Amino acid sequence: MNINKSELSKKIAQSIFSVTGNKILPLHEPFFDGNELKYVKECIESTMVSSIGEYVNRFEKMIVDFTGSKYAIAVMNGTSALHTALSIVEMEEGDEVLLPALSFVATANAIRYNKFVPHFIDSEFTSFGIDPLKLREYLIKNTKQTSGECINLHTGNRIKALLPVHIFGHPSKINDLLKIANEFNLYLIEDAAESIGSYYKNKHTGTFGLIGTLSFNGNKTITTGGGGAILTNCSKLADKARHITTTAKVDHTWKYVHDEIGYNYRMPNINAALGCGQIENLDKIINSKRKLFHMYKKAFNEFEDISIFCEPEDCKSNYWLNTIILNSKAEIFRDDIINDLRELNILVRPAWELLNTLAPFKQYPSMECTNAEKILRSVINIPSSPSILGINQ
Amino acid sequence: MNINKSELSKKIAQSIFSVTGNKILPLHEPFFDGNELKYVKECIESTMVSSIGEYVNRFEKMIVDFTGSKYAIAVMNGTSALHTALSIVEMEEGDEVLLPALSFVATANAIRYNKFVPHFIDSEFTSFGIDPLKLREYLIKNTKQTSGECINLHTGNRIKALLPVHIFGHPSKINDLLKIANEFNLYLIEDAAESIGSYYKNKHTGTFGLIGTLSFNGNKTITTGGGGAILTNCSKLADKARHITTTAKVDHTWKYVHDEIGYNYRMPNINAALGCGQIENLDKIINSKRKLFHMYKKAFNEFEDISIFCEPEDCKSNYWLNTIILNSKAEIFRDDIINDLRELNILVRPAWELLNTLAPFKQYPSMECTNAEKILRSVINIPSSPSILGINQ
Repeated sequence: MNINKSELSKKIAQSIFSVTGNKILPLHEPFFDGNELKYVKECIESTMVSSIGEYVNRFEKMIVDFTGSKYAIAVMNGTSALHTALSIVEMEEGDEVLLPALSFVATANAIRYNKFVPHFIDSEFTSFGIDPLKLREYLIKNTKQTSGECINLHTGNRIKALLPVHIFGHPSKINDLLKIANEFNLYLIEDAAESIGSYYKNKHTGTFGLIGTLSFNGNKTITTGGGGAILTNCSKLADKARHITTTAKVDHTWKYVHDEIGYNYRMPNINAALGCGQIENLDKIINSKRKLFHMYKKAFNEFEDISIFCEPEDCKSNYWLNTIILNSKAEIFRDDIINDLRELNILVRPAWELLNTLAPFKQYPSMECTNAEKILRSVINIPSSPSILGINQ
Repeated sequence: MNINKSELSKKIAQSIFSVTGNKILPLHEPFFDGNELKYVKECIESTMVSSIGEYVNRFEKMIVDFTGSKYAIAVMNGTSALHTALSIVEMEEGDEVLLPALSFVATANAIRYNKFVPHFIDSEFTSFGIDPLKLREYLIKNTKQTSGECINLHTGNRIKALLPVHIFGHPSKINDLLKIANEFNLYLIEDAAESIGSYYKNKHTGTFGLIGTLSFNGNKTITTGGGGAILTNCSKLADKARHITTTAKVDHTWKYVHDEIGYNYRMPNINAALGCGQIENLDKIINSKRKLFHMYKKAFNEFEDISIFCEPEDCKSNYWLNTIILNSKAEIFRDDIINDLRELNILVRPAWELLNTLAPFKQYPSMECTNAEKILRSVINIPSSPSILGINQ
């Protein structure tokens, strides 16, 4: 059967609207239905709106409780969380970090801030995350172990860290990746920017590695305006993260001494106040988003040329962004479908252009990323806001 | 006459309390007496709390109107503003930046983020800013001009930028510094983090150089929780600042292409909403702070061993932090006085330890900073919040 592309767009729109009702659909907007305003008001009235304040402590405690991480440090955004994570491990300029070619640009940017070298890895289809099988094979072929360090045979540089990303909120094959990190002596640092509320075998994403990072940007499952967090179970790393994100000031009542290069990365109290309101509703928000997925799944059930992405085995996903997958015949129409749907105020988007193809990164090492290319060609993220169904059903 | 140190502390406390009334006195707390909460509420209700939103545009427009700068780009904080400023001019790793040894650590940190080299300069007593006479003499003696570039004779590196700081809100001798920047082919980048509402010959600080930066941290004259801004009259630099502070994303409705290393530095809308409320009251806040200075001035008039810092000639200062200056006999008691006053809940503080003495910076080039040392030994910042007098007198 020949596919008619405008028929296809129309059918997709109908399926989406059958779930959401016919209205303007942002890709993902925040949902404030709790104590957000109350806490922000209290915060302003206390005048403690900046980097010292009770809401920051409270928000960090709530992140700890929610994720099961031993420590959480609230910062400006997911990018600064990643930059901090990469700054508190023992690494040097030129050291390489393995990351998926398929990710948002922040993952690679954060690596470059310290002049580390991004090294791009292919993805697999069940999670959209790094492919552990391909990665292991690649490392066996292209690296050697010297004095407990993983050396890139082609560049001669050390590969020091593995930085998987839980794409669109879906947990990567994190157990396999953890094994590889151990086998090849790599720090496992998880970019869980998109996956708060997502679990692999009942363990929260971002808590498998030495360090994990979260994002509370406005387009994420919950938001603090701009925000992020560093997760770790290691008290030394937590202390170090706190230290360098607060200008590396040495503890003293009034003296200004700083003992290393530091950053101004702590989350302001007013943003944390918003976050406290949000995280109180996080379970409800995720229920709503998971329900939305199930409704989409039904709505897209009859399509021949399109499937909807389902959480990987052993995982519970927050379904941050629901994703439809065009089959080989339909994927050539990806751009047209995106344009058609956006015309109808359904603000869909494709995956990110692969990082190893972007001007600032294309000179860095990369494996062949044929799976990631295929994913990029074939997926479209569809509207996934908790406001579509609300949270009090 | 012999000075009795506890007598001195007592007299200082009496003088301060004679102005403020006897109460707990933070060094500088924000003052919210306008539309702050209203705007933040509107912002939350619109759900547009993050990096896109009308309050960001409005706040930038208000900064433009207030400062007279042609462009303003609102960012996360003063540190990210400085880092951005240093990232949009033509500079390379190893290039040197002249800055005062007497400044907050962020000034030097921002230089190191791009692996530029801080080069520390002495201050002068009338403004606490860079001493233009000493600087010019130093540059004549220690640099040469080669093909229009200023070369450090000792390191062989290029000196590319002059980065004065308007200390405690008081305008540096910016006209003289501008002349030196022109004479020696240096970019003039002004760290006006502390000096919103301060003017040199009726021109706002931060608008003399190629680029200026502001801070809206919680301890500043007005606050956005965390926040800062980049000021420039150059449309190309403004565009570049906007571009790299928003992940260097190439303009496209839905495609994710990024053409250089970028940052996630834009100010979230909720913080800008707070800022819009604040800046509406900025004139009143500065009037209140200037009135407070005049009252302090009277109160400290009779001291033999202590004077109060007055704005430099041709300047109007925001008096961000009022400052008492101990004379040569009294300065040995600085630490005791600070401790005594803090015991009484008068949260005074000294100046920052000189940057060229801190572990992360002491290996970098520095002139002898005898004036800055003297200033550090002798000054104490005293409580300066607008809340002390209120803003509706």
